[in-house]
Amino acid sequence: MSRTYDVLAIGNAIVDVIARCEEDFLHRQQIVKGAMNLIDEDRAESIYGAMGPATVISGGSAANTAVAAASFGARSAFIGKVKADPVGDLFAHDIVASGVAFGTTPATEGKATARSFILVTPDGERSMNTFLGACQDLTEADIDPATVEAATVTYLEGYLWDPPAAKIAFRKAAEIAHAAGREVAITLSDSFCVDRYRAEFRQLIVSGTVDLVFANEHELKALYETADFDTALAALRHEAKRAAVTRSEKGSVIIEGATTVEAPAFPIEKLEDATGAGDAYAAGFLFGYTTGLGYDKAGRLGSLAASHVIQKIGARPAQSLKELAQQNGLI
Amino acid sequence: MSRTYDVLAIGNAIVDVIARCEEDFLHRQQIVKGAMNLIDEDRAESIYGAMGPATVISGGSAANTAVAAASFGARSAFIGKVKADPVGDLFAHDIVASGVAFGTTPATEGKATARSFILVTPDGERSMNTFLGACQDLTEADIDPATVEAATVTYLEGYLWDPPAAKIAFRKAAEIAHAAGREVAITLSDSFCVDRYRAEFRQLIVSGTVDLVFANEHELKALYETADFDTALAALRHEAKRAAVTRSEKGSVIIEGATTVEAPAFPIEKLEDATGAGDAYAAGFLFGYTTGLGYDKAGRLGSLAASHVIQKIGARPAQSLKELAQQNGLI
Repeated sequence: MSRTYDVLAIGNAIVDVIARCEEDFLHRQQIVKGAMNLIDEDRAESIYGAMGPATVISGGSAANTAVAAASFGARSAFIGKVKADPVGDLFAHDIVASGVAFGTTPATEGKATARSFILVTPDGERSMNTFLGACQDLTEADIDPATVEAATVTYLEGYLWDPPAAKIAFRKAAEIAHAAGREVAITLSDSFCVDRYRAEFRQLIVSGTVDLVFANEHELKALYETADFDTALAALRHEAKRAAVTRSEKGSVIIEGATTVEAPAFPIEKLEDATGAGDAYAAGFLFGYTTGLGYDKAGRLGSLAASHVIQKIGARPAQSLKELAQQNGLI
Repeated sequence: MSRTYDVLAIGNAIVDVIARCEEDFLHRQQIVKGAMNLIDEDRAESIYGAMGPATVISGGSAANTAVAAASFGARSAFIGKVKADPVGDLFAHDIVASGVAFGTTPATEGKATARSFILVTPDGERSMNTFLGACQDLTEADIDPATVEAATVTYLEGYLWDPPAAKIAFRKAAEIAHAAGREVAITLSDSFCVDRYRAEFRQLIVSGTVDLVFANEHELKALYETADFDTALAALRHEAKRAAVTRSEKGSVIIEGATTVEAPAFPIEKLEDATGAGDAYAAGFLFGYTTGLGYDKAGRLGSLAASHVIQKIGARPAQSLKELAQQNGLI
């Protein structure tokens, strides 16, 4: 193969339509705050009609991670399904313009490119309403073996369990990666996503289908159905090869067997839009991990990226994360 | 008529596609810095292909003014032409969601909705590359007499001279407004636009087709072909009924006959994206002017709105300008 990637991300290819709203808008629209709510086309139209003026920025959890990893200087690739429509063109333009290799063939039939209508409340929290559209058409045929074999880590989002065919693609990618001596990572994505697929996620971890687990505190507690963080962390330590657990302003905890590394959070001036905090953390961590910087630096790089993206609108970086890491003495 | 508007804005209906770039990108692409460059569809594709990841936000000069005026609490309407396509839907959604009355029938045939590819250099300056598309289809048939008659001020952008049929629509709107005892305002839009249409713009002013002129320092000097600001201002004072001239960090000068009012600029922390500074100034001024607050307050409201929009990405306000004006003791 002509190129080796540090990170290959596989996920839902989504364009974000972001608007500010007051708390009562969420109540009136029956939107679960802070969650990723799955919606159909009719509901998408109804929410869009009711929401305020919007900013449109390419998103998608794993895609955000691929872009932020590239911004750190990682060699980065993405697999995900758009339709050949104007929104799909936007997604493809942005990910390629961000320096990420992206060659998934767009669907020419079927549903439109996925959109997530993201409502940002005055506290900076984001509530997502996602119409999966063309993401439903990601199948194992889209998993190019040469790309997976060329990647140090193949990173998969838990949200892939929502479009039914994608989980088969997920398992195929994991098999190819392991057969080539590569590693597989997963993010648990969202505590409601964990509620939907708890048994399957635990099976992926216990069976060693994934080598590295990303989760936030809420997702971890949901996975082990406990309100106690330490209990959940102990369970994860027992079941997972290694994991990075984010705790908002408390930073992150990286565990591997008996090893525990705690990395602090970066201070922020103002939480503008929480969209993409976890995606950015994973990018910084994966950049540090795949380039051999160790868990402490990897965790700090993750925290730095997260602190950057939540101080602006949209989940993708607005400046070079490589320069930001250099300015902060991390690389 | 059932409703009276403070401001009716008529202009090109454009969606902005905004990306950051380095200075040398402008040189390589032969883009005139700080200007509005008119481009065709091929060039649009070529610039989009070369530019970085983008943020998509509704724009259009007069449309931005209508939205910002509404944000101050003005009763605001807009006339402009989109096509019935996804980009046109975005434009229509955003302007209506911003509280602006908008009823122009979208074109069902012809060119796509207008897009402006805006490159923001590290100094915060923006260089626009505009594909006019469906704006070419704005004709006098789109000027609804009842809407014009219902508006205290009909505000027209100089850019309307670029799509050939629109200048006829412009003149029709001015005639209807004056016949109803209303006023007409124009913004000169851009110094290159002034170079293209100098004789016609001066004729509009001298003939009294417009009652109020908005210009920045560069546009004013271009209008009277002089490098000396005071010479240009004296000429404008002689020819125009009244005018508001913006001077960036020096604030603005409002003139009417022998009267001169100078309004200071608001300090800014960081110039993020200069897009829409003039549009926002016009909105604040028109809100103050149409609600009888006097030239000093009108000028300060204009400066306040401009300082807000240039400290963020995109030309439209990110918070209530009414609240911002209240916080600053202006209303």
